[in-house]
Amino acid sequence: MNAIDQLITQLSKLPGVGKRSARRMALQLIRKREQLIPPLILALQEAHESIVSCELCNNLDSSNPCSICASPRRDTSTLCVVEDLADLWAMERSGAYRGLYHVLGGTLSAIDGRSPDHLKIPQLIARAKTGDVREVILATNATVDGQTTAHYIAERLEEAQVEVSRLAQGIPMGGELDFLDDGTLGAALIARKKA
Amino acid sequence: MNAIDQLITQLSKLPGVGKRSARRMALQLIRKREQLIPPLILALQEAHESIVSCELCNNLDSSNPCSICASPRRDTSTLCVVEDLADLWAMERSGAYRGLYHVLGGTLSAIDGRSPDHLKIPQLIARAKTGDVREVILATNATVDGQTTAHYIAERLEEAQVEVSRLAQGIPMGGELDFLDDGTLGAALIARKKA
Repeated sequence: MNAIDQLITQLSKLPGVGKRSARRMALQLIRKREQLIPPLILALQEAHESIVSCELCNNLDSSNPCSICASPRRDTSTLCVVEDLADLWAMERSGAYRGLYHVLGGTLSAIDGRSPDHLKIPQLIARAKTGDVREVILATNATVDGQTTAHYIAERLEEAQVEVSRLAQGIPMGGELDFLDDGTLGAALIARKKA
Repeated sequence: MNAIDQLITQLSKLPGVGKRSARRMALQLIRKREQLIPPLILALQEAHESIVSCELCNNLDSSNPCSICASPRRDTSTLCVVEDLADLWAMERSGAYRGLYHVLGGTLSAIDGRSPDHLKIPQLIARAKTGDVREVILATNATVDGQTTAHYIAERLEEAQVEVSRLAQGIPMGGELDFLDDGTLGAALIARKKA
C-alpha cells in the first residue's frame, strides 16, 4: 500500500469518518502538507505521550491527578458521577458545575458482563465515605442502562453519609413541545415546578 | 492549551470536521490511543516525507515520476486533463481509464487571477506536441470555470497534431429523470444516441 492509501486507511478508523471523507481529509492534508501535517503529528505525539488516567476520578488528562482534581478552585465536597469521558467534557462545557467528577467507564450491563467492579464503583463508594464529600450527583445517561447504573449506585451509597441527587429531567432548552418524544414530555409534566 | 485541546484544534482543521466531530475523534483517539495513534502518526510522517509532485503530470505521489507515469501498463498515447488531484483519483476509481494524466492544478479564472501559466497549461501543450500523444481528453468539471478552461485548452491544442475530446454529458448511472436538473436532462436529450 502506498503512503496515500495508508493515510486514508488510518483516517477512516476515526469515528464518523467513512472512506469518502477520509479521502477528502487525506487530499487536504497532502495539498497543504507543510502547514497541516507537522502540527497534527505533534499534537498526536503529545496526546499519546502525556495522557494518563487520573487515579482519583478516572478522567483522562495530561497530569495525574487530573487538572480538575488538582485544581484549588473546585468544590471538593461534590462528586458528579458520569459514565464516560465524553460526558465529563459535556458537563465542563455547560460551565454550570464546579465540583469534582467520578468517571465510571461505562454502565452496568448483564448482557455485556459489566459488573460493578469493572466500573470503578468500589472506588466511588470509597471516595464517598472519606467524609470530604457531602453530595454525589448521578449524571449517567437517561438510557435504560444509565438509569439502572444510577439506581444501583444510589443504593450502594445509602451506607455512606452523603446526599445523592440526579440530574433533572425535562424539556431541553429551546425544545419545542411538538418535537419532543412522549417520554420526555410526560416526565417534564410530572416534575413540573411552581411558576 | 493542554494536549487534548491542542489535538481537537488540529483535527478541526481537516475538511468537513467541525468542533463537535473533532471532539469525538479526539475522544476516540485518546480512548484507544495505543491502537490508533502510533499508526496514524506513522502514516502522516510517511505522507509528509515521501509525497512529491510528479514532474511529468503534476500528480502527487510517493515517487517522481508518479506510479501512473512510470507504469509500463498505461497507454502513453492518451492524456486525460483534470483540474485537480481529487479528479484524478475519481477517474482512477472508475477503472475505465488506462492512459496518463495531466493535472492542471485548478481552472482559469479572471476574477482569482489564474492565468494559463499558473495552471501547467504550457507543460500540457509541450507534452501534446512530443508526438507520443494521439488523444487529449479534457475532463475538467462541468462548471463554468471548468468548461472555460477546457475550451481554452482545446483552442491551444489546435496547433498540436492530436485529437481532443471531452467527457460525455448525460444522465448519471442510476439517475432518475424526476430528480435531475433541467440542464443535465436537456444536454442528455441533445446528445441522445441510437438505441
